[in-house]
Amino acid sequence: MNTTPIPETTVEFHLAERPEGWPTPDTFRRVERTLPELAEGEVRVLNRFVSVDPYMRGRMNLGESYVAPFELDAALTGGAVGHVVASNAPELPVGTAVSHDQGWRSVAQGPATTFRRAAEIPGVPLSTSLGILGMTGLTAFVGLRDIAEIKPGDVVFISGAAGAVGTAAGQIARLMGASRVVGSAGTDAKVAMLTERYGYDAAFNYNDAAPVAEQLAEVAPDGIDVYFDNVGGEHLEAAIGALHRGGRIALCGASSEYNVTTPKVGPRNMSRLITQSLRLRGFTIGEHVAVAPEFAKAMGEWFAAGKIAYDETVVEGIENTPQAFIDLLAGKNVGKMVVRVDA
Amino acid sequence: MNTTPIPETTVEFHLAERPEGWPTPDTFRRVERTLPELAEGEVRVLNRFVSVDPYMRGRMNLGESYVAPFELDAALTGGAVGHVVASNAPELPVGTAVSHDQGWRSVAQGPATTFRRAAEIPGVPLSTSLGILGMTGLTAFVGLRDIAEIKPGDVVFISGAAGAVGTAAGQIARLMGASRVVGSAGTDAKVAMLTERYGYDAAFNYNDAAPVAEQLAEVAPDGIDVYFDNVGGEHLEAAIGALHRGGRIALCGASSEYNVTTPKVGPRNMSRLITQSLRLRGFTIGEHVAVAPEFAKAMGEWFAAGKIAYDETVVEGIENTPQAFIDLLAGKNVGKMVVRVDA
Repeated sequence: MNTTPIPETTVEFHLAERPEGWPTPDTFRRVERTLPELAEGEVRVLNRFVSVDPYMRGRMNLGESYVAPFELDAALTGGAVGHVVASNAPELPVGTAVSHDQGWRSVAQGPATTFRRAAEIPGVPLSTSLGILGMTGLTAFVGLRDIAEIKPGDVVFISGAAGAVGTAAGQIARLMGASRVVGSAGTDAKVAMLTERYGYDAAFNYNDAAPVAEQLAEVAPDGIDVYFDNVGGEHLEAAIGALHRGGRIALCGASSEYNVTTPKVGPRNMSRLITQSLRLRGFTIGEHVAVAPEFAKAMGEWFAAGKIAYDETVVEGIENTPQAFIDLLAGKNVGKMVVRVDA
Repeated sequence: MNTTPIPETTVEFHLAERPEGWPTPDTFRRVERTLPELAEGEVRVLNRFVSVDPYMRGRMNLGESYVAPFELDAALTGGAVGHVVASNAPELPVGTAVSHDQGWRSVAQGPATTFRRAAEIPGVPLSTSLGILGMTGLTAFVGLRDIAEIKPGDVVFISGAAGAVGTAAGQIARLMGASRVVGSAGTDAKVAMLTERYGYDAAFNYNDAAPVAEQLAEVAPDGIDVYFDNVGGEHLEAAIGALHRGGRIALCGASSEYNVTTPKVGPRNMSRLITQSLRLRGFTIGEHVAVAPEFAKAMGEWFAAGKIAYDETVVEGIENTPQAFIDLLAGKNVGKMVVRVDA
């Protein structure tokens, strides 16, 4: 009997079929397979946390997205963090914490060059390197600073504000000098968290009967300068209508559209871009990873100074990854949703 | 009898009522009035040409636009060019050619500071300072260079391409290094002019039965990098759908919406801004007049080198200004439409 804890197999999830509308458990197929022997330059990594993110829904469709669609009958990929448990690469010895893109599985293996060292901060869970200290925080940082070009004094509106990116963005906007930060979320409990925990000045529940434009006008009666869009649809039209001259929108996500199979309705007030000199810019974080060191420095200082609150919704057990993803799309998370591999 | 040619009266057009949908002759009221005596520092200007422009339609509505709405029962304003015929300001002696904002009238009067010297180029009509050498050309220049951030090799799509801005933009895009320039216009005759006279590689008639997206795909089968929007609506959605990753749209006008009273439909593919990192930016030329000297230098060189074709649709007689404006909105112009004051 092998007494070392080196796992010989991995549990991984494959895309069994492309979902139409909402994904279901049938969208996924659980596969357990024996790992090949470690080649020269490779490492084997026991994942501690794997990430589920809204953008993954887009990759489950055929057709263009910002990265290639997931392949059918192959392991899904995504953010993950773990520890090296076997190494044929001197630069990543056993015990090193690494983040990488082989999520949706319990054990990862591949060339050391495809793994990045992850910081282990005493008292801070490793999962934060997938969230507030990782891609999620970076997304909020880049969206506000480089895409929306936030300026001190701006009134900032963030939709889907209780999600991973939204909770980060509200606080970062404030730290970058926003004069007022308002947000929307999908439940009253989330709305309460925005003002009580994340420093939002005001927030509203977009599932209330009142139109988004009306609710936005209540929390930002003098209009807005910046909109950080995680929702799309009705939110986008409302924000275009509320922007001051020279206002800017960073389009980061469109959660209202991910699982919709009925015809969409576009913003009917696009001519306001002309009359008010508005700018709309979409982005995906993959094109902005060069900002990571700058972000790490800024966020590291804010984080160490206790200026950043964060929440994680931790789902226990790799077996529950598909359901975690389905729950994420249904908005059952607050802050970053991750799966702890060893429940 | 006074033997000097100094006019004592002006014919001007007031806004009689705010149009719903298309303006009609009843929208306007002709007023003839005697001019007050010239005050210190003032000049009187006999207009030679007055401009009619699509943006004026927006100012006839109440509600926000990029400039204040036109007032009811007051003279309309707009671009004009003429000669000083009486002067109490030494810096603008009698005979000086000036451009200014007191259009929609035969004679203008006011402080010399509100008039700008206009270049008189031998063999070139003064009306060009309202068009290709003036705000129209500047709008195309700024829209391509500063708003759409055109790069050498870009494939550029321009809608409403036979209009004043569109005919300028197609040529300027090429001079700025576009690899392919395609356009849309509202009649077959205009479409033919685009390729025969204005250097467009291909063009289509947006009043044909085929959807704009289909027609665009035919003239730009490999997609586009830049879209210069003068039309809005269906064109905008088609362009968003055809843009390459990192593509840019300059929103300059929305002629398809100016006189529409039915509910608008917005672009349903806004999430493509995210997946393809697209940028949309609206603008009005009033915020970019600082670029005028740079534009004048560049356009002056192109123009002198015979690289710029232009057309003007000249309507004869100040009395016909309202009809000229109505015809402009109906697309009866090719290139810049102006009214010659003295028919």
